[in-house]
Amino acid sequence: MTNETIAAIATPHGTGGISIIRISGPDSVVVADRVFRAKNGKPLEEAASHTIHYGFIYDGNHVVDEVLISVMLAPNTFTRENTVEINCHGGLVVTEAVLACVLKNGAALAAPGEFTKRAFLNGRLDLSQAEAVIDVIHSPSSLALSAAANQLGGALSDEINQIRDVVLEVLAKINANLDYPEEDVDEYEPGSLLKDLTKVQDGLNSLLATANRGRLIRDGIDTVICGKPNVGKSSVLNLLARESRAIVTDIAGTTRDVIEERVTLNGIVLNVFDTAGIRQTEDRIESLGIDKSKKYIEKAGLVLFVVDGSQDITQEDLDIFETIRDKNVIVLLNKCDLNCIKTGGAFDGADAVAISAKTGEGLTALTNKIEEKFQLGVLSAENRAVLTNLRHKEAAHNALAAVSRAAAALNAQVPYDLVSIDITDCAAHLGEITGKTVSEEVVDKIFARFCLGK
Amino acid sequence: MTNETIAAIATPHGTGGISIIRISGPDSVVVADRVFRAKNGKPLEEAASHTIHYGFIYDGNHVVDEVLISVMLAPNTFTRENTVEINCHGGLVVTEAVLACVLKNGAALAAPGEFTKRAFLNGRLDLSQAEAVIDVIHSPSSLALSAAANQLGGALSDEINQIRDVVLEVLAKINANLDYPEEDVDEYEPGSLLKDLTKVQDGLNSLLATANRGRLIRDGIDTVICGKPNVGKSSVLNLLARESRAIVTDIAGTTRDVIEERVTLNGIVLNVFDTAGIRQTEDRIESLGIDKSKKYIEKAGLVLFVVDGSQDITQEDLDIFETIRDKNVIVLLNKCDLNCIKTGGAFDGADAVAISAKTGEGLTALTNKIEEKFQLGVLSAENRAVLTNLRHKEAAHNALAAVSRAAAALNAQVPYDLVSIDITDCAAHLGEITGKTVSEEVVDKIFARFCLGK
Repeated sequence: MTNETIAAIATPHGTGGISIIRISGPDSVVVADRVFRAKNGKPLEEAASHTIHYGFIYDGNHVVDEVLISVMLAPNTFTRENTVEINCHGGLVVTEAVLACVLKNGAALAAPGEFTKRAFLNGRLDLSQAEAVIDVIHSPSSLALSAAANQLGGALSDEINQIRDVVLEVLAKINANLDYPEEDVDEYEPGSLLKDLTKVQDGLNSLLATANRGRLIRDGIDTVICGKPNVGKSSVLNLLARESRAIVTDIAGTTRDVIEERVTLNGIVLNVFDTAGIRQTEDRIESLGIDKSKKYIEKAGLVLFVVDGSQDITQEDLDIFETIRDKNVIVLLNKCDLNCIKTGGAFDGADAVAISAKTGEGLTALTNKIEEKFQLGVLSAENRAVLTNLRHKEAAHNALAAVSRAAAALNAQVPYDLVSIDITDCAAHLGEITGKTVSEEVVDKIFARFCLGK
Repeated sequence: MTNETIAAIATPHGTGGISIIRISGPDSVVVADRVFRAKNGKPLEEAASHTIHYGFIYDGNHVVDEVLISVMLAPNTFTRENTVEINCHGGLVVTEAVLACVLKNGAALAAPGEFTKRAFLNGRLDLSQAEAVIDVIHSPSSLALSAAANQLGGALSDEINQIRDVVLEVLAKINANLDYPEEDVDEYEPGSLLKDLTKVQDGLNSLLATANRGRLIRDGIDTVICGKPNVGKSSVLNLLARESRAIVTDIAGTTRDVIEERVTLNGIVLNVFDTAGIRQTEDRIESLGIDKSKKYIEKAGLVLFVVDGSQDITQEDLDIFETIRDKNVIVLLNKCDLNCIKTGGAFDGADAVAISAKTGEGLTALTNKIEEKFQLGVLSAENRAVLTNLRHKEAAHNALAAVSRAAAALNAQVPYDLVSIDITDCAAHLGEITGKTVSEEVVDKIFARFCLGK
């Protein structure tokens, strides 16, 4: 536990009603008392934990702002340290001025993520929960928020710890058999050990099965809209964008191509990529081969293939479909307001939705179809752990590989002491997720991604 | 007092560690209890005022976020109503999701400025203090913040109320003399009345004397940098910009020309206007006449006239000075690092400062000179009221005009009952500042300028 008292602006940078300057560390209350004069004249040192106090921040004899101060004493705080939050007016100069007073009076400026790092180091959160904090903040949709909030609440940690407990018990039993083979220890039969390892494999497989979905929930589904000219591709994009709640989020740390539109349908994020390449060449089947379009379609998680549902399907439509049929395609039978013919069957049983980009008809059906295709709708009902984070996925994957090596070795009648090496490895990989076995370097890297004040 | 319970996001819009959803009104705690489950299981209804509670926001059975909730009960709150503040994670989607839960469970979305309007209507703040709230938030500099914080603390209200009390006492004495002329009432001699009116005039004059300074503190000094070519005008601008803390503020409601740079020197804001026109035409004295430059110099509160202090003053320098000599000029003898000659005297006793845009030498001297010229430095020492707001200035001006008319009437031996009309008028104008006598329309207009959540 570090002894320095730190402070930072905890609210978003900008202009608003209220900003918060957060102070954490052993001297939080002492520092706050140096800059604060309560209306009732009482020092904060005398305040009970989890109480709010009204007064003014002073820089010497000079009023800086009228504030409310929250006093929260260790250990029942986010950082497990004494914490003071100053709620001042939400202007840029005034917020900086209050922070400056606090820094002048004994607090050090907090590094990005330092509050959450202390929460982790002091045992308030495990590492996967700490990482969930940043996912909650950067959630691009309600579905992503659910997954992050569950993880923050400990859903993933609980699942990992359950699996890890089995692994640790296996190791204990192996060691008991190895250390005291002659004594009155229950023998750990290979069949019994194999059953335990299978249980671990099942748990990890079930968790890893959520990873793809988890990534889509957190980062969105890369989507391409294609189709021959004049079928209404731009209108479809406009419809999606209009129905979506326009939310700008920082996509910190991800390097991706420029997204034309990020749209949100009932909590599902679609990253619609700029397929100007396809459109500019008038979507002729020959020109579909151009590099850019190929690249986008190749990496797309979803292809929305627009045809004119009010007209007969043409050979050109079928030719385009041929190039995308192995992708995850939804055929949009557009212009269904004009003449809703059921031509979906023409595309070899691909999923089809009748839609009108003009009237918005069919949008709910499209949303349901996407939810169904990606099994994204289930999440909100459960509150179960979903692997959203690549680091966690890799660790779970390594844990599974280790336990599988152990099972194979066991089957090959390798001695227990050698089998146990892989099982120990499995436990270590699981511990990476919750932070029980993780290098300082990894921890530093994780918290460096945080914003200031968190 | 309105009965609706309102809610809004009170922190700046954006991504950060924490956001606040503020709820105010009789049902605040009831609404919060519908969405909040405390870790300790206790409902907020049982909470004492000014206490903080840890738990989770739920939308049905579905966790939205982990939060801290502040419960503050009437009347010791900003709005004088029951107030609940939810501190959730500072992401866009999560903050909107928490607000949506609150709105779904019985609160109405607050209009811009509605919290502060309720604070005013419920007597927590007078109107000049409510207006100071927005000035604190939008303060472009520490000096502007001081003036706004003083006003928020009631410095202006106190001064206005003192003057108004004298006016009201004058009216009471006049009325006593008019109503009971025969009875045992102390006679109110014209000389005595005039003395009282003079006191009011003095008070208002002294307050109005701060108005110009107040406006400059709040809105900044419009500044033009000029001089012949190659004397270092751009370097001077760069120096000022570099030394200034770059702070972007919304200048809500003001319509002004594009400011090239807004620089802050020791709390003084300089709005340096784009004088590209002057520079592009190579500053030849003939071209100084072009409309744009003329316009900027005409309205400038300060002209920084740059000459090459390492060279002899030329006729061109003198010609330029001739066109600006009736403005508020500071001559900058630039390049003083090369050869600091004292050529300031050449400009007819104008203020001159030796400076080096290259080394930064002389910047403190320039800052002091500006402070001295505009008498801006005094403020921080006093904590006195300064008229920063145009509406207040106009009201004070009208009050002064009214009391002056009364004094003139008295000197012309107009009867007391007629004199008292102007004195009543004076009291009404003073009441406009604090909001004691102000139309609903004006109040609505003032609060409409506020940001959401304030």
